[in-house]
Amino acid sequence: MSNDRVPRPALAELGLGTGKKARLHRILYQHGLRNGTAMFLPYDQGLEHGPRDFFDNPAAGDPRYIIKLAVEGGFNGVAIQVGSAEKFFWDYAGEVPLLLKLNGRTEIPSAAAPRSPLNASVEDAVRLGADAVGYTLYVGSEQQEADFEAFAEVRRQAHRFGLPLVVWSYPRGKAVDAKGGKNSFYQVDYASRTAGELGADIVKLNFPDPKATEGVPKAYAAEVGEQDAVNAVVRSAARTPVLLSGGEKGGDEEVLDKARMAMEAGALGVIFGRNVWQRQYDESLRFVERLRELLSKYPS
Amino acid sequence: MSNDRVPRPALAELGLGTGKKARLHRILYQHGLRNGTAMFLPYDQGLEHGPRDFFDNPAAGDPRYIIKLAVEGGFNGVAIQVGSAEKFFWDYAGEVPLLLKLNGRTEIPSAAAPRSPLNASVEDAVRLGADAVGYTLYVGSEQQEADFEAFAEVRRQAHRFGLPLVVWSYPRGKAVDAKGGKNSFYQVDYASRTAGELGADIVKLNFPDPKATEGVPKAYAAEVGEQDAVNAVVRSAARTPVLLSGGEKGGDEEVLDKARMAMEAGALGVIFGRNVWQRQYDESLRFVERLRELLSKYPS
Amino acid sequence: MSNDRVPRPALAELGLGTGKKARLHRILYQHGLRNGTAMFLPYDQGLEHGPRDFFDNPAAGDPRYIIKLAVEGGFNGVAIQVGSAEKFFWDYAGEVPLLLKLNGRTEIPSAAAPRSPLNASVEDAVRLGADAVGYTLYVGSEQQEADFEAFAEVRRQAHRFGLPLVVWSYPRGKAVDAKGGKNSFYQVDYASRTAGELGADIVKLNFPDPKATEGVPKAYAAEVGEQDAVNAVVRSAARTPVLLSGGEKGGDEEVLDKARMAMEAGALGVIFGRNVWQRQYDESLRFVERLRELLSKYPS
Amino acid sequence: MSNDRVPRPALAELGLGTGKKARLHRILYQHGLRNGTAMFLPYDQGLEHGPRDFFDNPAAGDPRYIIKLAVEGGFNGVAIQVGSAEKFFWDYAGEVPLLLKLNGRTEIPSAAAPRSPLNASVEDAVRLGADAVGYTLYVGSEQQEADFEAFAEVRRQAHRFGLPLVVWSYPRGKAVDAKGGKNSFYQVDYASRTAGELGADIVKLNFPDPKATEGVPKAYAAEVGEQDAVNAVVRSAARTPVLLSGGEKGGDEEVLDKARMAMEAGALGVIFGRNVWQRQYDESLRFVERLRELLSKYPS
Amino acid sequence: MSNDRVPRPALAELGLGTGKKARLHRILYQHGLRNGTAMFLPYDQGLEHGPRDFFDNPAAGDPRYIIKLAVEGGFNGVAIQVGSAEKFFWDYAGEVPLLLKLNGRTEIPSAAAPRSPLNASVEDAVRLGADAVGYTLYVGSEQQEADFEAFAEVRRQAHRFGLPLVVWSYPRGKAVDAKGGKNSFYQVDYASRTAGELGADIVKLNFPDPKATEGVPKAYAAEVGEQDAVNAVVRSAARTPVLLSGGEKGGDEEVLDKARMAMEAGALGVIFGRNVWQRQYDESLRFVERLRELLSKYPS
Repeated sequence: MSNDRVPRPALAELGLGTGKKARLHRILYQHGLRNGTAMFLPYDQGLEHGPRDFFDNPAAGDPRYIIKLAVEGGFNGVAIQVGSAEKFFWDYAGEVPLLLKLNGRTEIPSAAAPRSPLNASVEDAVRLGADAVGYTLYVGSEQQEADFEAFAEVRRQAHRFGLPLVVWSYPRGKAVDAKGGKNSFYQVDYASRTAGELGADIVKLNFPDPKATEGVPKAYAAEVGEQDAVNAVVRSAARTPVLLSGGEKGGDEEVLDKARMAMEAGALGVIFGRNVWQRQYDESLRFVERLRELLSKYPS
Repeated sequence: MSNDRVPRPALAELGLGTGKKARLHRILYQHGLRNGTAMFLPYDQGLEHGPRDFFDNPAAGDPRYIIKLAVEGGFNGVAIQVGSAEKFFWDYAGEVPLLLKLNGRTEIPSAAAPRSPLNASVEDAVRLGADAVGYTLYVGSEQQEADFEAFAEVRRQAHRFGLPLVVWSYPRGKAVDAKGGKNSFYQVDYASRTAGELGADIVKLNFPDPKATEGVPKAYAAEVGEQDAVNAVVRSAARTPVLLSGGEKGGDEEVLDKARMAMEAGALGVIFGRNVWQRQYDESLRFVERLRELLSKYPS
Repeated sequence: MSNDRVPRPALAELGLGTGKKARLHRILYQHGLRNGTAMFLPYDQGLEHGPRDFFDNPAAGDPRYIIKLAVEGGFNGVAIQVGSAEKFFWDYAGEVPLLLKLNGRTEIPSAAAPRSPLNASVEDAVRLGADAVGYTLYVGSEQQEADFEAFAEVRRQAHRFGLPLVVWSYPRGKAVDAKGGKNSFYQVDYASRTAGELGADIVKLNFPDPKATEGVPKAYAAEVGEQDAVNAVVRSAARTPVLLSGGEKGGDEEVLDKARMAMEAGALGVIFGRNVWQRQYDESLRFVERLRELLSKYPS
Repeated sequence: MSNDRVPRPALAELGLGTGKKARLHRILYQHGLRNGTAMFLPYDQGLEHGPRDFFDNPAAGDPRYIIKLAVEGGFNGVAIQVGSAEKFFWDYAGEVPLLLKLNGRTEIPSAAAPRSPLNASVEDAVRLGADAVGYTLYVGSEQQEADFEAFAEVRRQAHRFGLPLVVWSYPRGKAVDAKGGKNSFYQVDYASRTAGELGADIVKLNFPDPKATEGVPKAYAAEVGEQDAVNAVVRSAARTPVLLSGGEKGGDEEVLDKARMAMEAGALGVIFGRNVWQRQYDESLRFVERLRELLSKYPS
Repeated sequence: MSNDRVPRPALAELGLGTGKKARLHRILYQHGLRNGTAMFLPYDQGLEHGPRDFFDNPAAGDPRYIIKLAVEGGFNGVAIQVGSAEKFFWDYAGEVPLLLKLNGRTEIPSAAAPRSPLNASVEDAVRLGADAVGYTLYVGSEQQEADFEAFAEVRRQAHRFGLPLVVWSYPRGKAVDAKGGKNSFYQVDYASRTAGELGADIVKLNFPDPKATEGVPKAYAAEVGEQDAVNAVVRSAARTPVLLSGGEKGGDEEVLDKARMAMEAGALGVIFGRNVWQRQYDESLRFVERLRELLSKYPS
C-alpha cells in the first residue's frame, strides 16, 4: 500500500457539468471559508437516531436553531431531511446552502441488512433551492442490489438537474460486521472506492480504524498508521472529494486532531454534527471558530 | 431531556403553500371551535378492526350516522376511507371537512412487519372535495422501507395539489415490540420526530406511556411523568402540529384528563373515535360538548 | 351485536355517477326480474377450479352454453373471464349484461397467502360492452397489501369509465384459517365491511357460518343464528348492495332456503353458478324459475 | 316566448359529483349570506381593460385591497387571475373562496375574432386552494372552434378535480356585432344556452338588452320587457345557475334595480366588480350592504 | 391617476416558495450591492438585433467578455440565451447568477404580429445552474393568445422547479402601434399590469413615454410627468418587483437620471445592456461604478 497523499482535486478536474459546477462553486467559494474547503452541518440524526440525540441540548431539537447555527457559524451547507426543509428553510432560504438528504431510516428495525429508503427526490431538492443532494449508500448490505439501483436513478436525476451528489458511503450489514466492521480501514476504504466508482460527486466517510482487522482480507491485515489510513481512503475515492464525518461527540482536541488528519490527507473538509450542536449555542460557535481556523490553512 | 413545553405553532409558521394554508384555515377557523384547535372524528376502525367495534352501538356501523355526528357535534373534520366517502359524503358535502384516509389494512394478517397499503390517492381526495389526506406510517416496521417510499410519493402529491397531509405515526412491528412497545414513550417520541422529518403537515400520535421502558435505549429509561412525556412528543414533532388519539374507549374523566394534558403540551387537538361513537348518539354529543369546552380554553 | 335488518339501499343512494347508475339501472330494471333484485350467473370456475367442475354436465364446459343459459334463464348478468368474453360474447352481445371478471387464479399453487392477479382491465370491459366488472379481493391474506393496491387502481378505472365494480370479497390465507376460517361469520363480516370501505359498488359474499368460532375474537364467539349472521354481513356492507353466492352444489331446497335468507336480510340478490349449471339445461331452467319466483317477492 | 320564471335550482339537482357539491356548498352556505345566493367580486379588469380601471380609486389597483374587501364585505368569492392569486391570496387563504380565472386577454389586439387564452390550469386552482374556476367563452367569435375545444378540456379537468366551473359566457366578434350586438337579448340568450349545453356549472351573463334588435332573427325582434328578457336568459341556462354581471359603473339605484331583476328571475346572484370597487372603501362596503340586504330576501 | 409611489416590496411579501426565495435572496443579497437592489446585464441583443450591436465595441461580441464583465462589474446577474450559456458559462459558473433567457427572435421577419418562440426550457436552466429564467411577452400582439399560453406553461415549470421568472413585458404589434406605440405610458403601464396578473416574479419594462398619447384611451391622454409615469408603471405591477431597461445607448447622465427615476419610483433596479457594453471594457466598469453608487442609496 502506498502512503502517498494526493492533492485535493480542483473543481475544474471533476468532470462536472455547468450546473453542478455552479452549485459547487457557490458552496465552496461563496460560503464558509470561501477557500475551497468545506465544513457541513449534518442534521439527520433526529431521523437516524431519534430525539435522544437532542437530550443533552434540547434546543438543538429545533431545526430552526440548527439552520441559524449553520448561517451564523458560517458553514458551507446544512444537511437536512425534506420535512425539516419544507418547514424551516424558507426563513433562511439563500443564506446557507441546503444539502437535501434524500434518504434515511430509523434505527428501530434490524440493521442486519439495511437499506435507506428515498424520502425525497432530486426534483424536490431543485424546488427547495437546494445546492446539493445527499444519499446514504449501505455498502456491503444484503440489500445492496436495490440500494445500488436506487442510487443509479438518483445519480441520473442529479445529472439531469445539475445538482452535486454527496454520498454518505457507509459499510453496513452482517457481512460487514464479519469482515472488520463498519469502521474498519478495509471497509471504509472499500466504501470510498465504491462511491467514486458509482458516481458520487463528493463522498462522506467515517474515519477509518486501521486496528479493526478481524476478518479483513490479508492485504488489510498489516499494521497501518491512522494518518496513512486516512490518506488511503481519500486516495481511493479517486478525484471524488472527501468529507470526513465526526460521529459521536468526542473531546474537542481529539476531534480537531481528526479534522487536521483529514485536511492533511487532502480531504475537501469535514461534516460534523453532534460534535457541533450537542453543546450550548455559544460553545458551538467557539468550536466552529477553531474548525474554521484549521480549514483556513488548506485553501485551494 | 427537557421538560419545556413549546407553544402551538401558528399556521403562518408551517411553511405551507397557499392551498394547504387555505384548507387548514378552513378546518381550524371555519369549523369546530373556530379558534385554531382541532377535534377530529376518525372512522377507519371498520377496516382496521372490523365490524366488532360497532357491536356496542350498532348504529355507528353506518357511515352516514358518523358523518351526521361530525356535523352536529361540530367537529373540525371526519376521517374516513374512500369507499365510505364515495357513498356517504355527498349528502353532507361541504358541511364538515373531509379528511380522506389514503391507506389502511385489516387486522387479520400478521402484524409482525406491517405496512398499510394505499387504498386511495391524493387526487381521489381532491375529486371528493376533501380538505386533507391521512396516511398511516408504521415507524420501525421491517417494511419501513416500502412504507417510507410510498409516503414520499403521497407527500409529493399532497404538495402538488395543496392538501394538508395528516400522518398517523404509529410504531409497529417486532423490533418495536422488543424496544418498549408501540405505546412506549421512546417509540412514540421517535415516531413523532420521524413524521416531522419526512414531511407531515400534522402528526397523529398515541399517548406515550413513560412506564414502558423494557428494552428502550438508556436515554429513555429514566423516570418521566406523563405530562412531561406528552410535552416531549409534541416538542419532538418540531413545528408539526400534533393530534393526540384516544385509542380504546376509556372512562370519560380519564379521557378528558388526557385531552387536557395534550392541550397543555401545546398539541393542536385531539382525534377521538371510539370514545365518541361507542355510545348512544345523545351521549356522544354530550361528551363532545365537554371536549369543546376544554378546547375553547386553548385558542390561538 | 344488533339483529336488525337494513332495507336494500335504493340505486339513488349509492353515490353513483351517471355511467354507473345507467349500467346498474340496465342490469336491475331491464334484465332479470326487472324489479331491482339481481340473479347473476358466475362462470369463472373453469379457471378457479379447473375442468373438473364440468365433469357432471360436460355441456357446461362450453361458454356459449352458459351465456345462452344466462339469456334464456333471464339472468341479470353473466360473469366470465376475458378469454371467454372475447370468443363467445359477440353472439349474445347486448342480450344479457356482461360482468367481466378482471382477476382470477388457478387453485394449483398454495393458497396460504393468495392473491388473484389481474387478467383484464376495466378498459377491456368497456371495449367488450360489459355492464360491470368483477374483482376478487382476498381479505386477510399476507399478500393483502399488493391486493389492496391493485384494487385501488381498478376502483379508479371503474370510476373513470363509469362501470359498477362488483367485489368478490373472500377471506383467505393462513391467518384467516387460524381465526375462524374463510366461511366463519367473523371473517365474512369483516370481508363485507372491507369491501365497502375500499369502494365496492356491489359485494359478493359467501354465506357466513356462525358456528365456526375457533380462534375468532371474543365479540364473535357468542351464539348467533344463521339468519342473524346474514343480516349482520349485509348490514356491515353499509349501503353496498350484497350478492350472496352459493358455493358448491347443494340440494335445491337448501339452496333456495339460503336465497330466501339472503333476500330477507336485504341482499340485492344471489350469484349462483354450480348450483345452476351442474345439471342438465332444462333442469337448470326449472331451478332458475324457482329462484325467479323467490326474487319476485322482493321488489324495490 | 314564455314569460315564465323558473325557480333557482337546488344544489342537489345540478348533477354535481361530491367535490363540486362540497365546494359549491361551501361557497353558497358558508360564505356570503349563507342562504344559497351568491355575490362575487370579480377582479380581472386589470388584465381585461388595463390599469385605467383603477384611476378613479387607485387603491383598488392593489389586489390585496380587493381581497380584503371581499373578506370584509362578506362576498361568496373573489375572482382573480393566477398572478394575483400567487402573490396575494396566501395572506387571506381560506377566509374567502377563491374563484381562479383561468383565461383572459388584454383589450389591445383587435376584438374582431377574439379568443381568451388560458393563463392557468384547473390544477393550478387546486394547488392554490381555489373553490371554483372561471373561463371566458366568446360565443359567436370566429375563433369559436378553438375556444370550444379549450373549454372542453377545462371542463374535463374541472370534472376530474371536482371544481365548479363558472363560465363568463360572452357574445363577441364581428358576427355578433352584426346580429344585435354583444348585449342584445338574442345574443345573451344564446350565450346562456350555449354555456349550459357545453357543461358550465354556473354561467355569468351580462344583462340582456331587449331593445337591441338590429340584425337579430325574427323570433327575437318582438317587443320584450326587461324583466322578461332576464327571465328568459335564466330559463335558457336550463338548471345552470346564473350570475348577472354589472359591467361599467352605473348609478346605485339603477344597479340595485338590475340586481333585483336578476333575483326575481331566479338567478343565483350577482357578480359586480367596478360597481363595487370604483369608489372609496367605506362606500364600497355601504353599497355591498345594500346588495346583501337584497339577496337576503331570496334564500333557498 | 394617483401620483403615489409604492415602496419596493420585501422578498417575504412576494408569495414565493422556498426555491424561488432562496434564488432571489442569492441574487439580491449575495451578489451586486447585496442590499436588495438589482443591476442585471442583458445580452440577448446578438439574437434580437444581430451582430450590428457589437460594431462599436467588437470585443463585446464574445459572450465570455460579457460574462467576465458581469463578474468583475459586480452585477446581480447576466441574461443570456442557452447557446451562450452552454459554451461560456462553465468557466464562470457560480461566480455570477445566470438568468437564462428562454425565448427570443431575430428582428428580420415582420414585427406586425410578433411572438417570441421558446429556445430553451426551465429545466435547461436548472441543469445549467441558472438562478432565474427570462421570458419575453409581447403584450398586445395579435399572437397574444399563443404567447400567453406558452407563458403559462413556463410559469408552471418555473413554479415546479422554484426558479424566479423575469418577464420582459413588451407592448408590440400593429394594435400597439395604433394606440400610443410600444413605449407610450399607456402601453407600458398595461404591460406592467399584465405581467403581474399572469404571474411574473419580476417584470422588466422600458421607460414609459407619457408624451406618446396618439390613439391612447382618454384616461391616458392627460399630461403626466416622467417620474409620475415611472411611479405608475411600478405601482401597476402590484408587488411584482420592476426592472427598468435602458434600451439604446444614450448619454451617461441621461441614463443615470433614468436609473435614479426608477429607484425613486420603487423599482427593484435596472437591466442595462448596450449602455454598459457598447464601450471599452474599462469605461464599462467606470459606468457600472456610477450605477452601483446610485443603487447603494436604495437598500432594503
